[in-house]
Amino acid sequence: MIQRLAILGVGLIGGSLALSLKQKGLVGEVVGFGRSYSNLQEALNLGIIDRATASAAEAVKDADMVVMAVPIASMRELLVEIKPYLSANAVLTDVGSAKGCWVEDVCHVWQGVFPAFAVPAHPIAGAEKSGAAAALADLYQGRKVVITPHDASDAKSIQRVTHMWKATGADVRHMTVAEHDATFAWTSHLPHLLSFALVDLFSQREDVARLFDYTAGGFRDFTRIAASDPTMWRDIVQLNAPAIAEALAAYQAQLADYADLLAKEDWQGFSDAFKRAKATRDTFLPPL
Amino acid sequence: MIQRLAILGVGLIGGSLALSLKQKGLVGEVVGFGRSYSNLQEALNLGIIDRATASAAEAVKDADMVVMAVPIASMRELLVEIKPYLSANAVLTDVGSAKGCWVEDVCHVWQGVFPAFAVPAHPIAGAEKSGAAAALADLYQGRKVVITPHDASDAKSIQRVTHMWKATGADVRHMTVAEHDATFAWTSHLPHLLSFALVDLFSQREDVARLFDYTAGGFRDFTRIAASDPTMWRDIVQLNAPAIAEALAAYQAQLADYADLLAKEDWQGFSDAFKRAKATRDTFLPPL
Repeated sequence: MIQRLAILGVGLIGGSLALSLKQKGLVGEVVGFGRSYSNLQEALNLGIIDRATASAAEAVKDADMVVMAVPIASMRELLVEIKPYLSANAVLTDVGSAKGCWVEDVCHVWQGVFPAFAVPAHPIAGAEKSGAAAALADLYQGRKVVITPHDASDAKSIQRVTHMWKATGADVRHMTVAEHDATFAWTSHLPHLLSFALVDLFSQREDVARLFDYTAGGFRDFTRIAASDPTMWRDIVQLNAPAIAEALAAYQAQLADYADLLAKEDWQGFSDAFKRAKATRDTFLPPL
Repeated sequence: MIQRLAILGVGLIGGSLALSLKQKGLVGEVVGFGRSYSNLQEALNLGIIDRATASAAEAVKDADMVVMAVPIASMRELLVEIKPYLSANAVLTDVGSAKGCWVEDVCHVWQGVFPAFAVPAHPIAGAEKSGAAAALADLYQGRKVVITPHDASDAKSIQRVTHMWKATGADVRHMTVAEHDATFAWTSHLPHLLSFALVDLFSQREDVARLFDYTAGGFRDFTRIAASDPTMWRDIVQLNAPAIAEALAAYQAQLADYADLLAKEDWQGFSDAFKRAKATRDTFLPPL
């Protein structure tokens, strides 16, 4: 049971968490902090939060659970703002798509000493829509939430964050920050970069309109993630750059191999490659 | 009105064409040719074809429209087989995803002289399911069909192929073979290659199962086309290799630019690139 939950950033991710916990009766009061008055008003109207404030300091006052759900590039500034006002019994967590950067931000603000009450986390939930209006009580049902405790995070705080996410119906996993950032560089950040790159390439061609006229469902699916929020993805690329650079280099090597196969007219090589890929995908992501 | 339609290869593409023309009463008899007895039997049962034969020669006899809907790598052999049996009033067309190769095949079989009654065509229709059982009378409704007449194709034959496809409800376009092959190298063949490449790369990692465990909807969409038929795609890569090599090289240059941005920590560059890509996609493929 959470007595007072502070949601810093009441968007799809933070709002859905609050809604889920409220519906299950697992939270006393939810205080929402945000910079947009209209979004906070909407969150109040929808019953996502009980109280709204444009002051992060006020939001965290007496909160026993503080969830930072703002863009990852805004975390450090917000940490500076809330640090003096955190309650002695507060657990501090976040929802960012990259975790090393949050650990760095926390360490920086706490002068190099990661506090025991801080626990990084990352709910893996789509974000095609955004804002409080998009929040869903069952967004996390069956979805993965990855918790990446720091060595300094204490067992009690880890447990409280774990319980909170389990209560939403999520499939909660634990891994290290480094494992998390390497894993998602491969499974999420690299594919986004590749999808943006293809549409970016098209955008620079004079015949872009004609090309799009001859795209079909396969292209639409391949490039769906290129319609993601550019600022959020710029931040992710910046804040998980080393892991993304490594994955990108491996992919570039793979494409260089394919270019070699083309140059050598090695069609058997393509046959082997495509069969390998299809078998792998059919095994791990069987058709719905 | 087609008196006798020969469908060589009664799969999703050929079968849907036959079904559509039959339902609209635009065809007298449909003769289906194929190597699989059970598939032909299914096509008969479903009313897609009126008569089935395992002899291509027999199928094209007295047909005034011959549609080749077999894999593009099998076209040449089949052309050799049917050439002596084509009727004097026959129009010959195909449905391949690459067009230069069919023109070459036809030229080769006709000893360097492309015949006036041959008209290359390419219906742009998904093929997630295959075989006659997957055929749909309305598969081409609103879908594009690209007709790429050879200089030698005569106006009457072009018109008959155009009318046939328009009758299915398709949005029929004309372009040159070279325009077609360059266009689809960009909009279809390259994305397939890139999607296969990512899953291929995953398949070579020891932690492939763990990686797939942490994929989400974005990855699923991005790699859906990597579950396509490997043999068909090997053939397309082989038979449209020059255009695909060119598109691949441009994409590799784009990724090299992104790798440079990463190395130079040029986050503004990523911001510009991602905004450009999102704006382009939102313009030409607005959210459904």
